[in-house]
Amino acid sequence: MKNKFKRVLIGRPLKNEAIADEKFGVLWGLPLLSSDAISSVAYAGQEILTVLLPVVGVIAFSSLTYLSAAIIGLLVLLTFSYRQTIDSYPNGGGAYIVAKDNLGVLAGVTAGAALSVDYIMTVAVSVSSGIQQITTASPSLYPYRVPLSIVLILLLMLGNLRGIRESSKLFGLPAYAFMFAMGSLIVTGFIHVINKTVPPVQALPQAIQPLTLFLVLKAFASGCTALTGVEAVSNAVPNFKNPSPKHAKTVLLLLSLVVFVIFGGTSILSNFYQVNPNNGAVLVQVAKEVFPGGIHFMYYFVVGTLFLILALAANTAYSGFPMLISVMAKEGYAPRQLNMRGDRLSYSNGIIVLSAIAALLVVVFNADVGKLIGLYAVGVFISFTLSQSGMFIRWLRNRGKNWVLKACINGLGAVVTAIALIIIAVAKFTEGSWIVVFAVPILMSIMLKVKRHYTAVSKQLKITPEELSTVNIARDTYRNRVIVPVESVNRASIRALRYAKTISDNVVAFNVSIDEETGKKVRERYDLINTDIPLYIKYSPFRKVVEPLLKFIESTEYDYKKGDMITVVVPQFSVRHWWSKILHNHTRVFLERELLKHKHIVIAVMPLQLKDDDYVLKRRKTHEDML
Amino acid sequence: MKNKFKRVLIGRPLKNEAIADEKFGVLWGLPLLSSDAISSVAYAGQEILTVLLPVVGVIAFSSLTYLSAAIIGLLVLLTFSYRQTIDSYPNGGGAYIVAKDNLGVLAGVTAGAALSVDYIMTVAVSVSSGIQQITTASPSLYPYRVPLSIVLILLLMLGNLRGIRESSKLFGLPAYAFMFAMGSLIVTGFIHVINKTVPPVQALPQAIQPLTLFLVLKAFASGCTALTGVEAVSNAVPNFKNPSPKHAKTVLLLLSLVVFVIFGGTSILSNFYQVNPNNGAVLVQVAKEVFPGGIHFMYYFVVGTLFLILALAANTAYSGFPMLISVMAKEGYAPRQLNMRGDRLSYSNGIIVLSAIAALLVVVFNADVGKLIGLYAVGVFISFTLSQSGMFIRWLRNRGKNWVLKACINGLGAVVTAIALIIIAVAKFTEGSWIVVFAVPILMSIMLKVKRHYTAVSKQLKITPEELSTVNIARDTYRNRVIVPVESVNRASIRALRYAKTISDNVVAFNVSIDEETGKKVRERYDLINTDIPLYIKYSPFRKVVEPLLKFIESTEYDYKKGDMITVVVPQFSVRHWWSKILHNHTRVFLERELLKHKHIVIAVMPLQLKDDDYVLKRRKTHEDML
Repeated sequence: MKNKFKRVLIGRPLKNEAIADEKFGVLWGLPLLSSDAISSVAYAGQEILTVLLPVVGVIAFSSLTYLSAAIIGLLVLLTFSYRQTIDSYPNGGGAYIVAKDNLGVLAGVTAGAALSVDYIMTVAVSVSSGIQQITTASPSLYPYRVPLSIVLILLLMLGNLRGIRESSKLFGLPAYAFMFAMGSLIVTGFIHVINKTVPPVQALPQAIQPLTLFLVLKAFASGCTALTGVEAVSNAVPNFKNPSPKHAKTVLLLLSLVVFVIFGGTSILSNFYQVNPNNGAVLVQVAKEVFPGGIHFMYYFVVGTLFLILALAANTAYSGFPMLISVMAKEGYAPRQLNMRGDRLSYSNGIIVLSAIAALLVVVFNADVGKLIGLYAVGVFISFTLSQSGMFIRWLRNRGKNWVLKACINGLGAVVTAIALIIIAVAKFTEGSWIVVFAVPILMSIMLKVKRHYTAVSKQLKITPEELSTVNIARDTYRNRVIVPVESVNRASIRALRYAKTISDNVVAFNVSIDEETGKKVRERYDLINTDIPLYIKYSPFRKVVEPLLKFIESTEYDYKKGDMITVVVPQFSVRHWWSKILHNHTRVFLERELLKHKHIVIAVMPLQLKDDDYVLKRRKTHEDML
Repeated sequence: MKNKFKRVLIGRPLKNEAIADEKFGVLWGLPLLSSDAISSVAYAGQEILTVLLPVVGVIAFSSLTYLSAAIIGLLVLLTFSYRQTIDSYPNGGGAYIVAKDNLGVLAGVTAGAALSVDYIMTVAVSVSSGIQQITTASPSLYPYRVPLSIVLILLLMLGNLRGIRESSKLFGLPAYAFMFAMGSLIVTGFIHVINKTVPPVQALPQAIQPLTLFLVLKAFASGCTALTGVEAVSNAVPNFKNPSPKHAKTVLLLLSLVVFVIFGGTSILSNFYQVNPNNGAVLVQVAKEVFPGGIHFMYYFVVGTLFLILALAANTAYSGFPMLISVMAKEGYAPRQLNMRGDRLSYSNGIIVLSAIAALLVVVFNADVGKLIGLYAVGVFISFTLSQSGMFIRWLRNRGKNWVLKACINGLGAVVTAIALIIIAVAKFTEGSWIVVFAVPILMSIMLKVKRHYTAVSKQLKITPEELSTVNIARDTYRNRVIVPVESVNRASIRALRYAKTISDNVVAFNVSIDEETGKKVRERYDLINTDIPLYIKYSPFRKVVEPLLKFIESTEYDYKKGDMITVVVPQFSVRHWWSKILHNHTRVFLERELLKHKHIVIAVMPLQLKDDDYVLKRRKTHEDML
């Protein structure tokens, strides 16, 4: 029943070999991986305006054009830098790997922690912004923005638990539709400009102070959120069809081109259609003016594709984050289970963790893009800087063809992104970036502690070939003794006693009774069995079973010798319905928790198949089949 | 660490024998058990006013006096009825037991379900009302009423997890203080009335329609919440010192007397100090006028004791509910663990369940007493009716001294409470009582289903003495075979192989590798060991271990014969820190969940003691002590 439900939700399980089929080429790679970058036109420009407009008034719009140009310049530089990374790391050149390879473990873990934070922010920001597009078009939905965002996160989670390729098909077309919608918006918008048919601009706030450098930097910091998608491509190289580096590089180039056109185009357009970001999503407002009356369906098309591209952007993080974490988990920097592929070849645990934290952020920040943006971009610029520095060092060490030019490109990338990082962290410090500034080191120390723990464990488990050849595995290595806790004499305890007898000649039955009367009854019934297994009955002033049992083991009566292994046989009801689980097995949980602290006590869990209640209650005969 | 924290919070564990010391006499029994009834003066009268005032205006105040008289009449009747119950059931005469004894299982379960609902409502209403007293005196706290209520519930939960007697000492004195405060309020209030120094009354709503019968009944229904505490005394008879029935009866009589004086007195007083219930707690407002200026400290004393008595009322449910549920759990109508006494002799699980549901109600109903009151009293009047009907039938059957008179008293009680029940359910149906009308049958069907399940289980486990004497327990009952899943050849797997060898001569090692290369490496290392245990390596296109293992067991290669028992040895890391738990043991959880579905597979959980990370990483030598 539960499994059936799971199947319907996330599909049939896939085999390992099916992984090759899940890979994509340029056609599907572009929409799936570029969406983070191109979707940022929905909020990056808008957040620049939000910073500037209340202070400097209409000058904000011309400043937007210049700042967008600067950000696009940064994008071009990053594109060339990252093309080199893809060539050098055809198996996936995420910042974690590049930094660890060239700058050492600490830099790698820093990059890993920073990127993790950023993937989470990508989901939170993109989802909140996606819902903002909808609520701008339909203000009656505004009060429901938080639950709507949560629903969207859940849908993304389920989609990704189903697997990669289906995601790309499902989410690929809307990305192209978005490019078409933005193209139409820009072209139609400029036709209005040329024909001078732009509607009159709204009343906007007056300038209350001049444009200061700090303001420009703060606006720039907000705009840098447009660059968060670049990392995704180089991280996902192995997800491309062969030759994967070539496909990845092509996708990266196309991505830059698309961002250049759309981000640039809409930024210039905003100059002519001066809308107020306080009234909701800027592009939706612009689209409303560009597509009035008769061509109003194009307006809805813009809103729809804006929403979808933002959902797709969040989806990028769903392919990036679990992959990053699984790489780190494989090397011991994250819990191992994050490296277990789920039923549909996706890294299920990573997907679930990502969704949970993003949903929490959406709730805490009330799905407010303006507030979330303060936490964004710090992480990705840390990883940009580390990745580019790593590549720079790599060229210095390895050299090779054209190494000076290549080192210059990556070196310039490192310097520029480092400056941008400092700008973002400082300018936005009081508006949320401090959270990330603290979260990254905390996450790092957790990752290092996890690694340390796994190292300590493997050191304890390690055995050398020499030692292996001297290992003695024999029947008489030590004495194995068995204790069967008997609550009352029933089929379950007889089954346990029988099992005990087959695994050892040294078996005792052990009962804890509350008072002598209860104990006497147990003894009477037990004596009816034809067995040589002795029964020990203890009376407990406490209500617990574990303490008397441990006391008994230590008593001279039991005569425990150091080196003996004791197996405690515990029944476990195997029930059909989830609700009947809460009616059973509590003693077992107690016993296990306490006894497994002792090195020489093994717990043998004996399953008892319970039949359906109806079936049992309708039958007349007894149920010897349990034995 | 965790245990230490638990000790500080809830104290040292107590022995069974300590139970006798936990019992109380009249002095402590009165405050602990009567508080529910006497605390209702804080909301019962007020809710009558809330119903009447907006419709009939100032007539509401005189109506209040008459309705209070009717309710006190009902209380007197119930007192005599319940005194008879206490005599007949000296071991605790809760409605569940009385109804089950005399009217059958279904009536008993109905009473049990109804009472459970009512105990929960007692906590929710009393806590919300307690906080309302505070926020009336200090309106700036009003926005925080929900979190404040939750904190109060948590405090009650912790107090009760510590144990019964400490609670009575802790909460006993404030009950007497409350009686003193109310006495002072009534006496001083009437002195003002006699001296004609009552402050001028506030402007109150005008009558907009005449007093109808339905309005009177609705007001009466709200007022009946005053009677919810009576059940507690008869339910708690075994908690009294010997002779417990005599002590209980005395407490019940004193309780009625106290309610008579306080509820009657404050109701008449409200006639003269006409305050508006929309402005907050009525008694707090009255006290403000009765104790002005110079004797203002008495005002704070009234507010403080009102708050404390309501907390005490909630506490009554904390002794009643877990006891009721544990009686039902003992008979199989509720999960067994609700009958396990916790460390401090209290029924921990019941206490936690009660707190959780009450807290949920407080959140959902926004700690609004007016809204919660609609759900209140239905449950307790169901149990009144069933309990009194049961007693009536009992007298008819058993007869005895004065049985006709006794039957008349209980019969009258049954009829009157049945009428009151119908009034409450109908008059308040749209205001919340419908929730209880549905909740009680749902709870009943769950209880019956739980009972059915336990019956089916015990039928399956049952073994007759004749069968017992023919049971065969011997070493050769069946063949026990062992499979040791080996992830890699390390100390943990060697330890498991050694153990396996001591419990059977038929042992195999089993490895699942992702590809041939990995498998070959495992084989090479395994071959170094000097053992006759064969290693089987399987390659899995899936990532799971369980499927290949089950397939192997069914294969001809393994030659499984029906009747064989298979023990699968699984290592379990025993770690020091809670956080390192999430880093381990996932494979074990998987294996266990799947394998225990099979009747003939036992899982032997082998503990591996991991040392402290620091300790391990600082040592140079290998760690042979794990073997």
